Formats: sequence, structure tokens, C-alpha cells
Amino acid sequence: MIFKRKEFKSRRQLSSIHLIVLFYVLAVCFSSILLSLPFLHKTGVELSLLDTIFTAISAISVTGLTVVSTADTFNTAGKIALTVVLQFGGIGIMTLGTFIYILFGKKIGLRERQLIKIDQNRTTLSGLVKLMLKILQIIIIIELIGTVILSSYLLMYYETWQEALLQGFFAAVSATTNAGFDITGSSLIPFANDYFVQFINMLLLILGAIGFPVLIEVQELLRGKNKLKNGKYHFSLFTKLTTTTFFGLVLFGAVMIYLFEQHAFFANKTWHESLFYSLFQSVTTRNGGLATMDVSEFQDPTLLIISILMFIGASPSSVGGGIRTTTFAIMLLAIYNYAKGNTCIKVFGREIDQEDIMRSFIVIFTAGILCGTAIIFLSATESFSTIAIIFEVTSAFGTTGLSMGITPDLSTVGEVIIMFLMFVGRIGIFSFLFLLRGNDTKDIFHYPTEKIIIG
Amino acid sequence: MIFKRKEFKSRRQLSSIHLIVLFYVLAVCFSSILLSLPFLHKTGVELSLLDTIFTAISAISVTGLTVVSTADTFNTAGKIALTVVLQFGGIGIMTLGTFIYILFGKKIGLRERQLIKIDQNRTTLSGLVKLMLKILQIIIIIELIGTVILSSYLLMYYETWQEALLQGFFAAVSATTNAGFDITGSSLIPFANDYFVQFINMLLLILGAIGFPVLIEVQELLRGKNKLKNGKYHFSLFTKLTTTTFFGLVLFGAVMIYLFEQHAFFANKTWHESLFYSLFQSVTTRNGGLATMDVSEFQDPTLLIISILMFIGASPSSVGGGIRTTTFAIMLLAIYNYAKGNTCIKVFGREIDQEDIMRSFIVIFTAGILCGTAIIFLSATESFSTIAIIFEVTSAFGTTGLSMGITPDLSTVGEVIIMFLMFVGRIGIFSFLFLLRGNDTKDIFHYPTEKIIIG
Ligand SMILES: [K+]
Ligand SMILES: [K+]
Repeated sequence: MIFKRKEFKSRRQLSSIHLIVLFYVLAVCFSSILLSLPFLHKTGVELSLLDTIFTAISAISVTGLTVVSTADTFNTAGKIALTVVLQFGGIGIMTLGTFIYILFGKKIGLRERQLIKIDQNRTTLSGLVKLMLKILQIIIIIELIGTVILSSYLLMYYETWQEALLQGFFAAVSATTNAGFDITGSSLIPFANDYFVQFINMLLLILGAIGFPVLIEVQELLRGKNKLKNGKYHFSLFTKLTTTTFFGLVLFGAVMIYLFEQHAFFANKTWHESLFYSLFQSVTTRNGGLATMDVSEFQDPTLLIISILMFIGASPSSVGGGIRTTTFAIMLLAIYNYAKGNTCIKVFGREIDQEDIMRSFIVIFTAGILCGTAIIFLSATESFSTIAIIFEVTSAFGTTGLSMGITPDLSTVGEVIIMFLMFVGRIGIFSFLFLLRGNDTKDIFHYPTEKIIIG
Repeated sequence: MIFKRKEFKSRRQLSSIHLIVLFYVLAVCFSSILLSLPFLHKTGVELSLLDTIFTAISAISVTGLTVVSTADTFNTAGKIALTVVLQFGGIGIMTLGTFIYILFGKKIGLRERQLIKIDQNRTTLSGLVKLMLKILQIIIIIELIGTVILSSYLLMYYETWQEALLQGFFAAVSATTNAGFDITGSSLIPFANDYFVQFINMLLLILGAIGFPVLIEVQELLRGKNKLKNGKYHFSLFTKLTTTTFFGLVLFGAVMIYLFEQHAFFANKTWHESLFYSLFQSVTTRNGGLATMDVSEFQDPTLLIISILMFIGASPSSVGGGIRTTTFAIMLLAIYNYAKGNTCIKVFGREIDQEDIMRSFIVIFTAGILCGTAIIFLSATESFSTIAIIFEVTSAFGTTGLSMGITPDLSTVGEVIIMFLMFVGRIGIFSFLFLLRGNDTKDIFHYPTEKIIIG
């Protein structure tokens, strides 16, 4: 009863998922070829095949883990090429795919709608094309505004306007797509004392990671659409749940980072420095991957908190990865309601669909097993501390891109494991599970149910 | 629909759980007083209050983590007193409670049956008293046979028959109750090359951790009861599932330990040494806590595998803790069936009850959050490596008792956290969640269901 019956059942839908994965694989291949072109590299740079593919997967999955320094490897043309790859990854190959269809004047058929539907997890088919166009529109507007603000401001820092524009443009795209790549050579550390740059970056990171449906609904609210009888705007349960969880996690992260570091990293910092360090490093775990400090300077409990936050990741239908905020929220609500003895999950005047609860459980378990296995294998193949490995694995699966600095020193096996995690983190646990599925078996017969002893 | 409705709903049942916890608390108090009696200590031993309570909780929860050496702290009378505490903990306060009722000639009423029912998770009321008596009978028979075999054999090792008897008796009780305590001062390391002692210990450990229902059914099989029409014995789904998972985990553990250690700890060992080291250390993670080597000599991946195995723990209704084997099995089956697109879990010609699936999920999540929080806090309060802390936390929650040696050096806060985990691990996540529950709220109204985006 609980397991999903209607959705993903037909062979057509099943092959849609295979097709999406195929698109991702093709995007990785295309990006690898693009990023391996010698005239995009700085003179004297030698990029190995494995490192090229790693960079491509990291860019397409907008993770931001790097085995080579972006600043030292790519020239200006290379950096611009990289923003193209980030854009592809961030907005999602499906969105761009739709856009290209429209550009070429093709009418979008049911099959393409299906593809988009599965990739963006929308539960209704209607208005999906419109939605895709809106996504593209919103993201480009955000990036444009971000570029203008950052570039103008960065004129203070750079000698030529060309350099300021490149830095501002790259930073705006990297932040909005939550890519986590940087061309400063040391993330946002050069701006550790510039609260304006940090504020703009946090804003862009949040806009990218909060989820497109939320952005669409906010846009509708601003335009006065979808009003209720009493004149109030009706937000969907999804928007309420994901936004509450998102900002709840940001607040929780900032408070925990502050508490665990107040006598360590923040020992000789002012209150506003501590505030911005805590806040930025918490926001970035939602999926950004940029940092205003070297995270390896944090204490063990802080690093574990950040690992868990990265594992949870961003909102669904955003540029981010991880198990997603809604999944985590449903888990907490399920435990709370079970402990209270309730028979269902009530939240914001609605009940959560039982199938969604089961889906959440499956997602978290599979993600846990996947990350656990990766941690164990990396413990065997690498010589880093357990905490550094846990941090790297959750960062890759959450496509966050923060690192304690071990990425460039990974063994070949280690690089492959991290690549795999970034890939699964991006396509999502659901698509991953459906990839594993063979022929669709139908439940045409049933066995008698027997109760057993639990826990 | 999925959440449990019928069970644990009435106030009477709710207070039954409170009563069980009260019994455990009283047992800890009683044991603390008993173990603090000066004439049970060796001369010159000073045992602090915190260390006494720690030892009492460790003994009542049959965990086996120790802040003081049992061999150096307690004299012969103390060691015998400790076996009494282990017996109390291992068989369960409820079983002994029933036994005492019968000893005093009192008839067992519905209330006591209820208590026993909840403590042992049995789903039928009938025959529970009989069951309790059987449990006691079986455990004492196992311990007696174990004592006779081990004591006779240990005459080889010890000068007097009294010493051999004490060692054999303590070892048999400690192994059967999966207590993990030792009076050799270094677990079973003195018997690292004695395969006979190891074999007997593994047998006793398995008999204690496999679950009482399994033992009862095997006994019925041997006595020719409960036969089907075709003359075959009918094992319950529970027995089939838990036994398969139990031995599956033992095999998996042994293979993984061997693979990760073949070029490390086993580098200069013979094949039979490697076999016994792998097998014993795998069996002991099911709940024993005894070891034939210093586990801190293992590599990181091996330690992580052992941590996960300890977290899973023993079978339900056994002397062990953790999330239990059935819970773990249901999780794996749920993922497998979901990935295959099935609408329910079929296993051994039966379907798993949907409520049981939900229960399993809640148990694992709560356990995960509990252990995760403990690991983060211990990372802040202690100065040990992350791996040592993960190992200690899963060992305490699983009431396994293996340690990388950090237990005696824990801070006061650390000791309290570990005590709490041993307590929750013993009473089980369910009782723990019910303890947190306030007044029973009834679902007298329903909200409309709204679907949201997952993963
Ligand atoms: K990222
Ligand atoms: K134990």
C-alpha cells in the first residue's frame, strides 16, 4: 500500500530516467572534452584524463571539489568555459534541453514534459514548460543582478574593469548555481573581512538552493497571482515545509558552529567576525561550498555538524544535492509524531502523504548506506583521518564542495569513489535506485502478512 | 494508517512502560549499592560513586564497558556478586520479577503479563508466563553446561579447582548473558591460541544473542511439538528472518575483517589464526563484547565495520542491544523491494506488516540521531580520535562493550553520555520514545493530504 504504485511504473517512464542519466553522462563527456582543450589552459599546465573527468563531474554536479586549482589551471577563456558548464549543471540539463528545443522552434511533446517532470520532481504535468522557462528566466535575472552588483563593487579590488567583471561574473554564477568553484585560488577567504561581498554571496547561494518552486511562488506572490478569497497568497505545503527547514538548518548550523568554536577558532575574534564566520559557513553547507576560512581549522564536533548539514543538503528542485531538506523534515516529523502516538503526520494544516513518508525513509537509508560504504572504503584506500574522510564523502554526496583539503591528494580509487558520489548526489537517490532496477515486476500475488518483533 | 494504533494506546500500557523503566532504574540503584560494598572489593581499592554507577549500568545493561578493571577491583565475593547482577540484566528484570512472584506463591495477574509482554516484545499474551519460565530454564541450563565444560577444561590453566571453577563459572555467565565482563584482566586475550575456549565462548555468545523465541522454537522442534501436517516443524517468520540476518551478519563481519586486515593485523598470522581472529571478533560484535585481541590494533575500515555491526546489535528478545537484527533486515528488504518497484515486502513466503516497516524506520532514525548527537558531544568533551569515539558510542548503544581503550579515561560528562547510551540501548528505542511521550493525544480530526517533493 505504502510503496509507490502509480508513478514510474510504465516502461516509458522507466526509460525516461535512463535517458536523463544518459544526458548527464553525455554532459560529463562534453564537459570533459571542453575542459581538456589546451587553449583553455594556462601555459605549461598538464591536466591528466582522470583529473579532467573529475573537474567535469564536479562542475556538472555543481559540487566544487577540485583536484587542481581552477585559478592556476584555466586561463580567462577557460574560466568562462567553466561558467558555461556550471550553468548547465546548476539549472539542470533538462531545463536547458527544453530551452534548446524552444530555441530551435520545436514544440515540446509529452515525452520531453515527462523528462522534465522526473528531473524536477514536479507532481503535475501541466504548466511544466512554463515552469522551465520561468526557472531559466529567474536564474539568469539573479545572475545578472549579482554580476552587476559584484563587478561594480569589485572595481575596488581589481586594477582593470575587465578583471573585476570576470571575477564578479564568475562569482555570481558560481554562487547562484551553488557551484562552489572559485577563481581567487582560495575561495572567499580574500573577502573574510568584507561583509558586503559575503552578504551578496549568501543571498545568491540561498536563492539557488532554496528550490525553484519557492522562487516561482514568491514571484507569483509579488505579481499578485494565486490569491485566496481573503486576499492572502496561498503558499504550497512544499514551500512552507522546505523554507522552514532550510532556514531552520541555517540557524541551527550557525548556532552550533558558534557554540563549538567560541573558545577555539572564535577565541580572538570580534562578535561581528564570529557572527559572519558562523553564518556564512552555515549557509554554505546548504550547498554553496564557498568558504570564508579554511574549514580544517574547525574543531571535530564542528566538522561533524557541518558533515551532517552537507549530507542533508539543499531543497529539492534546487541546484543542490544531498538527501534534501524535505526528506530530513519528514524524518523528524515522523519520529515526533510516532513518539506522540499520532497515526499520521500533520503539519501546516495538512497531512503528509504516506507514500512520501516511505520515500523519505528509503532515500535516507540508501544515502546512509552509500556514504557509509564510501567512508569505509576510503578509510582503506586513503591515509587521512576518519573525520577528513567523513567530511569529504558527505561534501561529495551533498554536492557541497567543502573540503578539509584532501581532494588533490586522493588516490585514483579515492577520486573514482568521490566522482561516483557527486554523480549520485546530483541525479538523486531516486534516479539512482531506478537505475538499479531491472525489469518491472508486478505484484500479482500476495502472501499472508505475519507480524514480527521489532527493536 | 501506518502508525501503530492499537498497541500502547491505553494509559495502563503507557504506565507499564514507565514501570519497566522504573524497574531498570531500581535495578541500577540496587546494583550500585551492592557493588559499592567495601567487603566485595580487593584491599586498598577506592571506587568513586560515578565509577560505581557506571559499573552498575554497564552490568545491568550487560554492556561490559568498564572504567575500572573488574579483576583488580573486586575480590572473589565481588566477582560472584557481579555474576548475579549480570544474570539480572541478561535475562531481564521482568523474567526474574516473574520468577520471584512465582517463588512467593503469587498468581501472575494480567498486569504482570502486560509488563512481560512489553519487555519481551511478544505479540500474544497467552503462554507468556510459560515462556518466561522456559527462558529462565534454558538460560540456566546453558550456563550450567557452559560452566561444567569451561571449568573442567580450565583445570589445565589454573592451580586450584576453586580458581578454575570461578573462572569457568564467570566466563560461562558472562558469555551466555553477553555481558562482556572479564576477570582475566584482559578479556579472552590469554586464550588467543586456545581454539577450544574460543569455540565454547562463541557458542554461548550466540545462544545468548540469537533471541529467546528462536531458542524456544528450537526446543519445541527437538521435542517434536508444533508439527505441520507433513511432519515438518513450522518455524515462525521471526525466527527465520532473525536467524538468517544473525548468521549473515556474522559471516559478513568475518569476511570484512579478514579482507581489511589480511595485509595488516593478519600479515604474519597462519590461516587458522586469521580464521579464528576474524570469526571471534565478528561473533562478539553481535553483542558479546569479549575479544581475543586488542581491537585498537585493527585498521580504520575494520573499526568502522565493527562499529556498524555493534550498532545493529543482537536479535530482539535476546540479552543484546542495538537496533536489533530484524530492524536492520527490514530496512534492507524495504530498499530492495522499493528499488524493484514492489508494493510490499515479501520474504519467506510471508508479507511484512506495514506497521512493522514503519516501526523499523523510526527505530533506526532515532538510534542514528541519538548516536550521532553523542558522537558530536563526545568530540567536544573528549580529546580522542573520531574513530575511537564512534567505536565507543556504537559499542555503548549496542550494549556490546568492545572498546579501543578510552573508557577509563573518559571525562565525567563523557561517562554520563556513555551511561545514558547503555541505558537506552538496553531498554530499547521503543521504550525510550514512549518515555518521551506525554499525554496520549487522539487523532480525532484529519487534515487534507498534500503531496510534496521528496529527494
Ligand atoms: K556546491
Ligand atoms: K555486551
